[in-house]
Amino acid sequence: MTKTASNLQIDSARLWGTIHETARFGATPKGGVRRLTLSAEDKQVRDWFREACEAAGLELHVDALGSMFGLRRGRDMSKPPIGLGSHLDTQPTGGKYDGVLGTLAALEVVRTLNDAGIETELPLCVCNWTNEEGSRFAPAMMASAAHVGDFTTADILSRKDAEGVTVAEALEAIGYRGETPVGKQKFSGFVELHIEQGPLLEAEGKTIGVVDSGQGVLWYDGKITGFESHAGSTPMPLRRDALATLSEIVLAMESIASKHGPNAVGTIGEAVIAKPSRNVIPGEIAFTVDCRSADADIMDALDRDLRASVAEIAARRKVDVALDLVWRKEPTHFHPGFVDTIENAARTLGYSHRRITSGAGHDACNLNTIMPAAMVFVPCKDGISHNELEDATQADCAAGANVLMHAVLALAGVAA
Amino acid sequence: MTKTASNLQIDSARLWGTIHETARFGATPKGGVRRLTLSAEDKQVRDWFREACEAAGLELHVDALGSMFGLRRGRDMSKPPIGLGSHLDTQPTGGKYDGVLGTLAALEVVRTLNDAGIETELPLCVCNWTNEEGSRFAPAMMASAAHVGDFTTADILSRKDAEGVTVAEALEAIGYRGETPVGKQKFSGFVELHIEQGPLLEAEGKTIGVVDSGQGVLWYDGKITGFESHAGSTPMPLRRDALATLSEIVLAMESIASKHGPNAVGTIGEAVIAKPSRNVIPGEIAFTVDCRSADADIMDALDRDLRASVAEIAARRKVDVALDLVWRKEPTHFHPGFVDTIENAARTLGYSHRRITSGAGHDACNLNTIMPAAMVFVPCKDGISHNELEDATQADCAAGANVLMHAVLALAGVAA
Repeated sequence: MTKTASNLQIDSARLWGTIHETARFGATPKGGVRRLTLSAEDKQVRDWFREACEAAGLELHVDALGSMFGLRRGRDMSKPPIGLGSHLDTQPTGGKYDGVLGTLAALEVVRTLNDAGIETELPLCVCNWTNEEGSRFAPAMMASAAHVGDFTTADILSRKDAEGVTVAEALEAIGYRGETPVGKQKFSGFVELHIEQGPLLEAEGKTIGVVDSGQGVLWYDGKITGFESHAGSTPMPLRRDALATLSEIVLAMESIASKHGPNAVGTIGEAVIAKPSRNVIPGEIAFTVDCRSADADIMDALDRDLRASVAEIAARRKVDVALDLVWRKEPTHFHPGFVDTIENAARTLGYSHRRITSGAGHDACNLNTIMPAAMVFVPCKDGISHNELEDATQADCAAGANVLMHAVLALAGVAA
Repeated sequence: MTKTASNLQIDSARLWGTIHETARFGATPKGGVRRLTLSAEDKQVRDWFREACEAAGLELHVDALGSMFGLRRGRDMSKPPIGLGSHLDTQPTGGKYDGVLGTLAALEVVRTLNDAGIETELPLCVCNWTNEEGSRFAPAMMASAAHVGDFTTADILSRKDAEGVTVAEALEAIGYRGETPVGKQKFSGFVELHIEQGPLLEAEGKTIGVVDSGQGVLWYDGKITGFESHAGSTPMPLRRDALATLSEIVLAMESIASKHGPNAVGTIGEAVIAKPSRNVIPGEIAFTVDCRSADADIMDALDRDLRASVAEIAARRKVDVALDLVWRKEPTHFHPGFVDTIENAARTLGYSHRRITSGAGHDACNLNTIMPAAMVFVPCKDGISHNELEDATQADCAAGANVLMHAVLALAGVAA
């Protein structure tokens, strides 16, 4: 990093203004945002973003899955750019910061460099990845997954939403089926700023999370088959209660995840009793399990311990429990050099910081599989996201954008 | 009991025949019965029953709530009759025996006495009580409850089903709004034969349950308010998981009921996660609790222990748990003399038997509040009822009808 740039700060009020200006596209009465990917509201924010990028001198192009890339030329155009950005789509009742902060902070970095007349060695590329959320089309993070070759473009284009509309049709309907082949835009690396979506930074009073890893995920579908019987006339010892069985599994999951902590979590988020009735002992329950760790060995241990507990509980209670692994995603280990660069930027700027693991998936996790990548987190109120109550402070958003800018300057280099 | 009657047996094949003959009214494809109270199917079985009663020489009258009473004259008409019977309505997907056995066994008793030319001292009254099940109109057992004065006739007539049809309209639609004022038919006592609806007799290989008590009931509505958060990014120690809280409550209920056993049960039959999602920690759950015991002191202890456990769990997990008692029904203690009479009949007939508590509510429990009453149970397969799989053997049904007949003969006396 050169002396020229070391005291540079983004314009906090301008960043905050763009966040609130774009929040009107899909604004909900309770202060949140409903901006499903490739919807009319998504077109509105994309049009706004395109115009803002072009006004900032970026060369904008759109790929075949609608991801938007705004190129800022560097001194050395023989190398691919450093990418920075995130996504502008939201959950059905989402907030104003998830994805938006990272995308608009990338724009703000470019505006700040423009104002300061700073040229980087490597070019920069501001990114808005299509469908990070996965609420309308599955899978989540589909564009970055296709970018790294996990899916073909044709496969993703054929995916349908609940109304049967394909991704291809939705892209065409809003005019964002671009010309650039997916994956053609190369990067020297990628940095994504995001709200934490968890409570750790707030709980510890830290401003910056230096994200060094992303959790691997195990998803299971479970089904308990006990025996439905009369709540009044079935003595306790003769019951085969599916809900009591589930209860033991829930507490076992909690205890197993805690035992393998702090770097492990386990959750049963869905549990549906078949034919529930106040005076009937539950006979059948479908449930799901979500286990995560950033350590593949711990993931294996979570799987082993959970299966052993479930088998013991089922045998003791004389019920059947089916537990099927439906998805395993390996942990992400972000590029050590990029992580160090982000940590250095936070330290240099004087922000309190800590290393942190991302509990949620992000486009940067996909991109990290083919390029060096890392992430910057800032606190969000009470750790809430995917909710209209999602909140973050102007100061924290600005701090995150400053760390993003200085990390990108360090990675791209400032032209002499 | 006189020598004349001591070897008398009901006609097992005839009883079995009537059970299966009436099962066609509302028959379901899987071998069950759907015969909601006061429905077209209920009218069919009522018409059949009226004709059969009249053919057996009974004087039939119907009260203002549709309950059917078939009087068989005794030698001493100055005393009210001994009542025997049950109900002919079923659950939406009910079986062929619940209620039906007791009502048709009462008819079979009369047919047998007719065939044997036996006159009783007291008259007998074969009963079919309206809406025991409570599936279409609330409350369950409404006609017997009104009979004993727990509700006014006008109140019950105004109750509506899910389509807004009142009891009065439903009675008129099928022609069963009778002339007899509710409660006008007096009884010297009442005996009801019923399938156990529980697993005890079958598990112990006993043919006859001598029902000496009915469980009291505590119903609660509960609501857990924890905090909904991201399953990936919320560390285990910072969670306020509503499902983990519920799980502890379910297991506490199970342990409390077992501790106060064998004469206590406790069940959580309904539990609904608000906005369930695979990767969201449940923040809010509504649930219901059903606790029962035939001992009022144990009911108090169940209530006390449950509330204490819930308070401890909620405080430790930092969640709110509301637990509201929505119904308390005191236990039934059947008339000791009637219970002894049933036990004697079972012994004399050589059937294996045991004293038993009814876990379910029955019309006999209501009637017991104003007259001596008791019940006879026979086993049902796997303890299943309120289900198309409900099953009982011809031999057990016949044994129950024989015990019913001999108990009624002992209570009514055989005319010299």
